[in-house]
Amino acid sequence: MMETLGVEVQAIDPGSVVLAFDHDDRLTQQHGLIHAGVLGTVLDSACGWAARSLMPADHAVLTVEYKLNLLRPAQGERFHGTGRVMKPGRTLTVAEGVLVETSTPDRPIATMTATLMAVAGRGIKD
Amino acid sequence: MMETLGVEVQAIDPGSVVLAFDHDDRLTQQHGLIHAGVLGTVLDSACGWAARSLMPADHAVLTVEYKLNLLRPAQGERFHGTGRVMKPGRTLTVAEGVLVETSTPDRPIATMTATLMAVAGRGIKD
Amino acid sequence: MMETLGVEVQAIDPGSVVLAFDHDDRLTQQHGLIHAGVLGTVLDSACGWAARSLMPADHAVLTVEYKLNLLRPAQGERFHGTGRVMKPGRTLTVAEGVLVETSTPDRPIATMTATLMAVAGRGIKD
Amino acid sequence: MMETLGVEVQAIDPGSVVLAFDHDDRLTQQHGLIHAGVLGTVLDSACGWAARSLMPADHAVLTVEYKLNLLRPAQGERFHGTGRVMKPGRTLTVAEGVLVETSTPDRPIATMTATLMAVAGRGIKD
Repeated sequence: MMETLGVEVQAIDPGSVVLAFDHDDRLTQQHGLIHAGVLGTVLDSACGWAARSLMPADHAVLTVEYKLNLLRPAQGERFHGTGRVMKPGRTLTVAEGVLVETSTPDRPIATMTATLMAVAGRGIKD
Repeated sequence: MMETLGVEVQAIDPGSVVLAFDHDDRLTQQHGLIHAGVLGTVLDSACGWAARSLMPADHAVLTVEYKLNLLRPAQGERFHGTGRVMKPGRTLTVAEGVLVETSTPDRPIATMTATLMAVAGRGIKD
Repeated sequence: MMETLGVEVQAIDPGSVVLAFDHDDRLTQQHGLIHAGVLGTVLDSACGWAARSLMPADHAVLTVEYKLNLLRPAQGERFHGTGRVMKPGRTLTVAEGVLVETSTPDRPIATMTATLMAVAGRGIKD
Repeated sequence: MMETLGVEVQAIDPGSVVLAFDHDDRLTQQHGLIHAGVLGTVLDSACGWAARSLMPADHAVLTVEYKLNLLRPAQGERFHGTGRVMKPGRTLTVAEGVLVETSTPDRPIATMTATLMAVAGRGIKD
C-alpha cells in the first residue's frame, strides 16, 4: 500500500518513524484535498513501524485501533507523517502520529493516537 | 482516491451508503492483509457520503475525526463497507461504519465511528 | 466509583451489562447536564463488565482505551448505560456502549467504543 | 461534578488548564486503582476549559467526543490533569489532555484527544 500511495521512508529511529509523500491527484477527495483516509494510512504505518522498532525481531505488529483528528485542510505539495511511541509495552504499544505539509511543520494537518499489538512469531490469525 | 483503490458504490440511501472493493495486492500491508488504512479510507468515505445524503444540496461534508477498530484480519476476496448516520445534525453528524468480507457479513473486520461537519456553500478553508 | 455515582446494576448477561443511575446535581456540569465524564464512567464500567463476563474466572479486565461520542444533551431523570461485547478475544475484547435516558430508549445520548484487556491472575501492574 | 470528585483548579492560562485531585477510595475501581472514568472526567473538564479559555465570553463549550488511552495503572497519592488546545477554531476546537501522578510528571497515566464545540449565547439544546 505504501507503494500504491507513493510513500517514502524518510527516517527510522528507535521508537520514531517519518514517512513522506507528494501531492498526487490520485490521492484526493472531491474537493481536491488529500483524502482523510490517506492521512490515516500514512500515520497508521508510521505509528506501526515506530512500535515495531522497539519490539523483538521475531515479532509482528498489528494495529488494534486508531483515532484520527483532522485539524486543517490537507493541501500542499509534500507531506510528512511522523509516528512516535508514547508508551511501549510487551503486548500493547501506544503511539501518536502527526502529519504536516513539509513547508509548514508547525501546523499539524492531522493527528493520530494508535494502539498496536505485538504478535510473537509470524502467526497472524483470527 | 476511490478510483485509486478500485472502490465501487453499491448502494446510496438517505443516511446510509455501501461501498465495495475487491482484494488487490496493491492494497495490502507486509503480511498480505488489506492495509488498515484502506479499511479506514473506505469507511471514512462511506460515513461521509451517508452524512452528506442528509444535508442540504449546497453543503459540503468534511471529516472532523474518526476512530477505527480492527476486529479481525482483513483477508478475503471482496469487501463491503457500510456507513450509517447515527445522529444527523445541522453542523455535526455522527456516523458509524462497518466493514466485512462479502461472504461473511456477520463477522465485522473493522468498525468506525466518525464525526462529520457540514460546510455551507463550497467554502472549505482553514 | 459506582457507589459514588449511585450506579446500580440492572442486568448482567454473558457479553452484555446494563447499568442505571438517577439524575443527581452532584453529577452535573456548569449547565445542569450530566457531566460527559459520568457518561464515560458508566459506559466504561458497562463495557468492562460485559467483557469480563466472557473471560475465564481468574482473569481481571483492564480498559486499554475508549472513545465517547456525545450525541444529545444529557438531561432527564434516569439513565441506562448498556455495554455489549462486539468481538471477544483471548487478550483483547472490543465492546460498544450506549447511554439513553430511560424514557427515550431510542435516542442515544452517548455512544462508546472500548478496548479491554484480559489480565491473567490478579497481577495488575505496569 | 468537579466538587463530587474533589477536583481543584491548579492553573488556568489561555489555551491551557491544569486540574488536580487526591487519591480517594470513593474514586477507585475493583482493584483499588483510580477508575478510568475519573481520569476521563478530569481530562474532559481540563480540555473543555482550555478550549473555553480561547472562546468569546458569551460562548459555552460542549464536548463533541473524546478518546482516552490508559497507559499505566492509575495509582498514587495526587494526580494532575492538563488540557491544552492543539487547534482552536470558530466552531470546533481540538484539545489534548495528559494525566500524571504528581510525583512522576514524565510518566503519563492517561492521554486524551477531545473535540469541543463553541455554542453562542447560552442556548444548549438538541
